[in-house]
Amino acid sequence: MVRVKVPDVVVRRLVNYLRILKEKEASPEDYISSAELAALAGVNAAQVRKDLALFGEFGKQGVGYPVLMLKQELVEILGAGEPVSVSIFGVGELGTALARYLTTRHRFDKDYPFHVKALFDVNPKKIGTTVGGVKVSLVTEVSELVKAHDVKVGIITVPPEAAQEVCDVAVRAGIQAFLNFAPVKLKVPEGILVKYQDVTSDLQELTFFLRQRMER
Amino acid sequence: MVRVKVPDVVVRRLVNYLRILKEKEASPEDYISSAELAALAGVNAAQVRKDLALFGEFGKQGVGYPVLMLKQELVEILGAGEPVSVSIFGVGELGTALARYLTTRHRFDKDYPFHVKALFDVNPKKIGTTVGGVKVSLVTEVSELVKAHDVKVGIITVPPEAAQEVCDVAVRAGIQAFLNFAPVKLKVPEGILVKYQDVTSDLQELTFFLRQRMER
Repeated sequence: MVRVKVPDVVVRRLVNYLRILKEKEASPEDYISSAELAALAGVNAAQVRKDLALFGEFGKQGVGYPVLMLKQELVEILGAGEPVSVSIFGVGELGTALARYLTTRHRFDKDYPFHVKALFDVNPKKIGTTVGGVKVSLVTEVSELVKAHDVKVGIITVPPEAAQEVCDVAVRAGIQAFLNFAPVKLKVPEGILVKYQDVTSDLQELTFFLRQRMER
Repeated sequence: MVRVKVPDVVVRRLVNYLRILKEKEASPEDYISSAELAALAGVNAAQVRKDLALFGEFGKQGVGYPVLMLKQELVEILGAGEPVSVSIFGVGELGTALARYLTTRHRFDKDYPFHVKALFDVNPKKIGTTVGGVKVSLVTEVSELVKAHDVKVGIITVPPEAAQEVCDVAVRAGIQAFLNFAPVKLKVPEGILVKYQDVTSDLQELTFFLRQRMER
């Protein structure tokens, strides 16, 4: 595979294409046209062709892309087949929901790459209980558990006022990327990644398009 | 304000700029440079200037944008100040977490535009209980409640196997846009909007960038 520096927006679209292809049941003879993939992804067909051409010519003029092969290519490009150890900080309702979701996905799909290795909370009542088969530990054990399981990604689901402190502790323990559900901006050292997950932004985007559509 | 058709990707960035500005405490004299806003948004400065120039010239050469004015402009462009009635389908852990989050935001910020008006579930034990002050109702009451509260946006947090049916019921009741947390593609009539919220895609994106960074 050719190594190219992939722009951020392209990565987002590739992830989206992969999600769509995974939802499709396909046999080795099935093809998908750039127009169909584009419609499902909410972009235009030229964009799909341009994105995929970055990695070589695996489409067929007038027929489209072989679904299984394209899926496999995207998995390789994105490194989406390699297992990644994840830990969740904050075992409240959202943290519990995510822990259950991720462990269930993994149970039913052995190729599912995200493995929840540790859960952290500060509530003594929760320590030692399990969610999805994973034990809840005290935040003071972060360093040890993160090293033991080589955890690189942390999901932050603590209340906003606790998020920065938890993030600092996690960074010191060796976590290098965060998916942050707390509605606050996190200060992190250079080189540490943070992706924000904010339902307010999602709703804002959705209602903007809704209004635009109603005005037409 | 000039009315322009705003491309989808620009809307996503505008929503992101607004989120960043809302997190900044600013007085009427404070400016933010396109470089600073760009760094916080994870794009480049030229992109910020281009996006904002779509709506007029409200930056100042060499100084930047007045924070409060820019925030207000973005609120107007996005229609982010107008209240929107929301309902949540599925009062499991995720639905409960979202209901609590949205109702709390609204309680502490009267300008917070998303108002949870109804919660729906099928579990008889949950019917009649409240989350964040909002009553849980049976899915059979969707039509009545959606009309009564003029609900336009539905958040789907039911298990994947129930998502399509719930979506169909909600569309018939008049809901026009969905934020879908169930990991399935929804079939909706032309004109109905669906935004997918998928933690797997987020984690995939994050780990892709993490690997790319580690290889350098």
